[in-house]
Amino acid sequence: MNLESLNTPAALIDVARMDHNIERMQQRMNALGVSFRPHVKTTKCEQVVRAQMAAGAAGITVSTLKEAEQFFARGIRDIVYAVGMAPTKLSQALALRQQGCDLKIVADSVACAQAIVAVSREHKESFEVWIEIDVDGHRSGIAPDDETLLAVATTLSNGGMHLGGVLAHAGSSYDYDTHDQLVRIAEQERSGCVRAAERLRAAGLPCEVVSIGSTPTALAAEHLEGVTEVRAGVYVMFDLVMHNVGVNDTSEIALSVLTTVIGHQSEKGWAIVDAGWMAMSRDRGTQRQKRDFGYGLVCEQNGELLDGYVMSGANQEHGIVSRFGTPDHEIEQRFPIGTRLRILPNHACATGAQHPAYHAVGPDGTIEAWPRFYGW
Amino acid sequence: MNLESLNTPAALIDVARMDHNIERMQQRMNALGVSFRPHVKTTKCEQVVRAQMAAGAAGITVSTLKEAEQFFARGIRDIVYAVGMAPTKLSQALALRQQGCDLKIVADSVACAQAIVAVSREHKESFEVWIEIDVDGHRSGIAPDDETLLAVATTLSNGGMHLGGVLAHAGSSYDYDTHDQLVRIAEQERSGCVRAAERLRAAGLPCEVVSIGSTPTALAAEHLEGVTEVRAGVYVMFDLVMHNVGVNDTSEIALSVLTTVIGHQSEKGWAIVDAGWMAMSRDRGTQRQKRDFGYGLVCEQNGELLDGYVMSGANQEHGIVSRFGTPDHEIEQRFPIGTRLRILPNHACATGAQHPAYHAVGPDGTIEAWPRFYGW
Repeated sequence: MNLESLNTPAALIDVARMDHNIERMQQRMNALGVSFRPHVKTTKCEQVVRAQMAAGAAGITVSTLKEAEQFFARGIRDIVYAVGMAPTKLSQALALRQQGCDLKIVADSVACAQAIVAVSREHKESFEVWIEIDVDGHRSGIAPDDETLLAVATTLSNGGMHLGGVLAHAGSSYDYDTHDQLVRIAEQERSGCVRAAERLRAAGLPCEVVSIGSTPTALAAEHLEGVTEVRAGVYVMFDLVMHNVGVNDTSEIALSVLTTVIGHQSEKGWAIVDAGWMAMSRDRGTQRQKRDFGYGLVCEQNGELLDGYVMSGANQEHGIVSRFGTPDHEIEQRFPIGTRLRILPNHACATGAQHPAYHAVGPDGTIEAWPRFYGW
Repeated sequence: MNLESLNTPAALIDVARMDHNIERMQQRMNALGVSFRPHVKTTKCEQVVRAQMAAGAAGITVSTLKEAEQFFARGIRDIVYAVGMAPTKLSQALALRQQGCDLKIVADSVACAQAIVAVSREHKESFEVWIEIDVDGHRSGIAPDDETLLAVATTLSNGGMHLGGVLAHAGSSYDYDTHDQLVRIAEQERSGCVRAAERLRAAGLPCEVVSIGSTPTALAAEHLEGVTEVRAGVYVMFDLVMHNVGVNDTSEIALSVLTTVIGHQSEKGWAIVDAGWMAMSRDRGTQRQKRDFGYGLVCEQNGELLDGYVMSGANQEHGIVSRFGTPDHEIEQRFPIGTRLRILPNHACATGAQHPAYHAVGPDGTIEAWPRFYGW
């Protein structure tokens, strides 16, 4: 298997870049004195997660119970399901715990805590529950000073659950693009989550774990006092959204989509390629950022950036490659039919999800298929 | 299996609506006196395609050779691969033909035609090739009056290929939203493609098939003189983009995503659900249309529209449901934790692609899993 013979479109992982990204994050976490728990939703791929664990990760974060089942079956026990628990999913979570999986679940309301307690009683089992804290108004969770925090904790504790800790994700960090802003939101994430933990402890409740994280805040935090672990996902591949946020260079993006030129509209300066949104995903995350990269930034087959060319449009299995600004009327000569290009994606989690497997390109040019799974 | 016990998120097909949509299109094509060749990229699902064939479809259209392989293995021989042929995929196409698949491939350049001829000669085989016509500047193809048309046809014909016909897709029809505009673009698609066929025939070249189509133009065309077949895909499910274009009512949308409420931010008027962009796709096709439905329009579990509620935001496994306009501060009481909702999608092709299977809900409420495939 080599790049020339690979069927296109194909999702390529540059293994050297991936290893660099894993090492960079793990060393930073070691220096900050916290555990690191990668979010495996980005790749859902055993080989990638093994590399993260080998570098020193302590357990994993998942976004679906299917991820928990798949990685538990592959030998990983320490798992946090970081999405608020739906009552109907409790039996699936229970089954995992009964098989020996050290699965932690998350709650951010009294109603959810009550449902957890009820199912536990019914089955004479107990869950370890972490309480989700809202540090930036981004999505879910309880604000650190909200009275609901103690109500949820008390419901769980009185119900016999193991109160494992608190967890926060400053998802709004994706909206910033200067180092100062990222340092500020990172500190907000840290201090908010630590504050929630302190309130629980002051009320005599246990709170061993203080878990925070997003790729931008993990890379910007100046200190992590009071935090025990950090979670991050997309750092393992990086992408153009993160590049606009300012945490990675394009030369650190480990994921790209290999594609073949299948046609041209020379008057418009278009090359048509066989990667459309089915291969790139519909993610237009750079649309409202400082640089809009369309559906991705174009590189030569060897991964070298072709400055100024983007995928400017996408249908299901067609992409339009064109030059920023003035049309390139020589595009047919520049990229003749059959030319292979690589597209750096806006959002590595979304692009990866479109593919049944990655093709991992080693430093020596060898290629291995690394399967990934999907669904729920 | 019933709606109450189904794991969420899940992609539901309302079978009665699907059957209605299939019937509506097939009857229209019968009345217009043309064959109908559904584009199976929308669902990639055997059960759906069988229903389309049973209603009278003549062959299928595919967007990948994997679709051709999968449906040929399920007994469908008459297949058009409606994406410009990449030279590196010719051996895969040849293998299908050698197994007895009546696969038609597409070219829109001399370079592509030459590559097809070269591979045919090398293997002492012949391809049936259709020439792609550009009727609206939307994407690929040769303009009807462009001299390239005869150059491509002659290259193929002299090279011993079977010139099967011409094919056009007025993709720009998605940009309109009045009946008059749709009638006009439908006529432009028809007349442009017929004009190309006439030029070929005038030059003494064969052109049996004149194939056009998109869901909006298929439903708007007033007559199809000179056309032999129509292709369309999304009509089988319909969606909110098509609703904004004006070709279907929301009550005709056959695809929805079943989801469970997992939390709230009452001050903001948010319910958090367990369907995020992984379940809905990142498609924001209604963003630039007359009504922006966010990530989808919210219905009760039974499919009844909840007027005014949309999925206003989405992360990977979290969706935010909120009311249009003023926040609903009673949303926690309205949709308590555990409530099940259905979300009508922006784009049925993109949403379906996120799911390993559909769950088909029959008129009697029974549910069947209908697998779909993905990848290339």
